[in-house]
Amino acid sequence: MGKHGIILFGHGARDPRWKEPFERLAAKLRASRGDQPVALAFLELMSPDLPSAVASLADDGCDAVTVVPVFFGQGGHVRRDLPEIVETCRKAHPGVAIHCATAVGEDDAVLQAVAEYCLRLAI
Amino acid sequence: MGKHGIILFGHGARDPRWKEPFERLAAKLRASRGDQPVALAFLELMSPDLPSAVASLADDGCDAVTVVPVFFGQGGHVRRDLPEIVETCRKAHPGVAIHCATAVGEDDAVLQAVAEYCLRLAI
Repeated sequence: MGKHGIILFGHGARDPRWKEPFERLAAKLRASRGDQPVALAFLELMSPDLPSAVASLADDGCDAVTVVPVFFGQGGHVRRDLPEIVETCRKAHPGVAIHCATAVGEDDAVLQAVAEYCLRLAI
Repeated sequence: MGKHGIILFGHGARDPRWKEPFERLAAKLRASRGDQPVALAFLELMSPDLPSAVASLADDGCDAVTVVPVFFGQGGHVRRDLPEIVETCRKAHPGVAIHCATAVGEDDAVLQAVAEYCLRLAI
């Protein structure tokens, strides 16, 4: 049975420090997932892009990949750009089941953690 | 004594559905903060902008405002654009103490909640 990879998909930015939280998030996931791969991918301005990240995971023996959009809101990038890129990846890797998750900002526990952070700042 | 407002500052997007998580986050905070105001503001593509949101809170009796960047990464928008806008707001409202927080993606509990969401998707 193949591996199941997770790709944390972010927007990307010019400032290299922008991706630090994504790297910390990947490290947290790697600590919990044993030998199941965790990779980053970006829409623009940073590398790798999503097709490169999927190709790396396929080479690494993944037959399933879950793409998690690390965005708060679901706008054009998540609703339009991402499905198109995922479709390209599916055609390039027909043996890999690629699932695209809902953006993390839609998860109530994530929003609750953000709310608690705000409350700690300004009681 | 005046009120202490929170402004959730996001990037903004063309798709109006993009801001839904921000509205849910504001509702969570309002439920916890009694009569202390919570407002949204956006860098671009959505309204209000930050100066308008600060003006509204000042009119509402706030003498302190905490601006929380609802961004994962701290790139140019958070490190360069936001401080400039905040400086403009301080000049326009010298009686309001405006504090700018670190982006929510820098908070470990927020990242932990995102990691748990990812793990629920792909064990």
